[in-house]
Amino acid sequence: MNRINQVIILGAGNLATQLAIALNDAGVDILQIYSRTKESASALAQRVNANPVTELNKIQKNADLYIFALSDKALQPVLDQLAIPIGNVVHTAGSIPMDVFENYSENYGVFYPLQTFSKNRKVDFSKIPICIEANSEYFQEDLFQLGERISDNLHEINSEQRKQLHLSAVFTCNFANHMYSIGQKLLAQKEVDFDLLKPLIEETAAKVQEMDPVSAQTGPAVRFDEEIMTKHENELKDIPDFQKLYRFVSESIFKMHSNKK
Amino acid sequence: MNRINQVIILGAGNLATQLAIALNDAGVDILQIYSRTKESASALAQRVNANPVTELNKIQKNADLYIFALSDKALQPVLDQLAIPIGNVVHTAGSIPMDVFENYSENYGVFYPLQTFSKNRKVDFSKIPICIEANSEYFQEDLFQLGERISDNLHEINSEQRKQLHLSAVFTCNFANHMYSIGQKLLAQKEVDFDLLKPLIEETAAKVQEMDPVSAQTGPAVRFDEEIMTKHENELKDIPDFQKLYRFVSESIFKMHSNKK
Repeated sequence: MNRINQVIILGAGNLATQLAIALNDAGVDILQIYSRTKESASALAQRVNANPVTELNKIQKNADLYIFALSDKALQPVLDQLAIPIGNVVHTAGSIPMDVFENYSENYGVFYPLQTFSKNRKVDFSKIPICIEANSEYFQEDLFQLGERISDNLHEINSEQRKQLHLSAVFTCNFANHMYSIGQKLLAQKEVDFDLLKPLIEETAAKVQEMDPVSAQTGPAVRFDEEIMTKHENELKDIPDFQKLYRFVSESIFKMHSNKK
Repeated sequence: MNRINQVIILGAGNLATQLAIALNDAGVDILQIYSRTKESASALAQRVNANPVTELNKIQKNADLYIFALSDKALQPVLDQLAIPIGNVVHTAGSIPMDVFENYSENYGVFYPLQTFSKNRKVDFSKIPICIEANSEYFQEDLFQLGERISDNLHEINSEQRKQLHLSAVFTCNFANHMYSIGQKLLAQKEVDFDLLKPLIEETAAKVQEMDPVSAQTGPAVRFDEEIMTKHENELKDIPDFQKLYRFVSESIFKMHSNKK
């Protein structure tokens, strides 16, 4: 039998939204959604049949779990303002250690879904790795039980490892996505549709599902083809930032491959 | 009726390999595979029922099309050494203008499949954009007809646009893939499995199939969260290259988003 059935979510951002939807779809009862702004609280509350709250003192005391899905900056002030003993708590942040809760609660932990979320893009939660950490075995079991209801991909990950996962995710997600943005911007200059790059983007990501990314690398930098690289840098002369980035990433690729050999 | 039925492919690298396989699968007759090294020529020739050749003077004169799928550096010397009038020719390179063939052939063009290829990873060619350019309408029609046999995604792209596509592809494919490699390297330091990043990589690429990459951006840089970024930079202090890259790409993301607003 599930020990966590009724939860309260603090936060209404991208992650809070998608997590709330997944939990609600799995039959978990979401009592309240807290957000500082009424619009955000109401918008999400409505989607998951919960009550919106904008004041911390209106948060109910009887939930089985309080999920803090707030920005890193907001978490500590909210904890301080709550100023009441709260029950079982988790946060959902990659780079905050678990013991931020040490002085606030008896059972605490982390429930970190490693994915990029947008408010209006539904994701298949079942494949999302959820990184779980807890201050007791008993509570950890609770969190695994809750996780199993929405994902088949649960992992016990300590704070140190989670911090590194978050950092790695910035590179593999945010920075990779920025490379897409640059590609789009460059194509727009010559009136070429970004659609032409989409199969390439898809295949590049698909490749490393099976291959090691270092072995999957192709292009001028991995063979340090100075001629093409110089051409490319010249083409980028009007956008010095992209030009600098081009040289810098190319050298980094070449260095990684030289080390491999 | 197809006007191109028998082709000869010069080159046996990643692109040559996958293109030869796709053409062969589509029923195009591949007469010969040329490569300087016997091993490469034979390996590919065997896969597509062709004859391997390692000497340029052994190349048959009767093919309907000669596909130069050589490295950018090798193309010019091979053209010079051929020193005979050759029939219909195309190259498959992103950054070489079509008129490299001007003094060598009457009908010439470009047949550039925009994708990342590895020798032993079969790709679904039907979705790959093939960028076609030709020096006459008649020959362009031939190339479109050939292209249609292997892909549903053909485009008429001039040399200037193709050059920009190639540059954009370096960012969206090679550089994005390097971000995956960095993620993997960072995780290995803490003994975390790269598998945990795979759903994130997949979703990041899937997102921009539907969303604009600038709108899809998430993470600390887009909100210029100095606190997390400084933490991350500190964690990277032992790898100065990654540290520098982190700051540089973060600033580039922030700049792009400030311009958007």
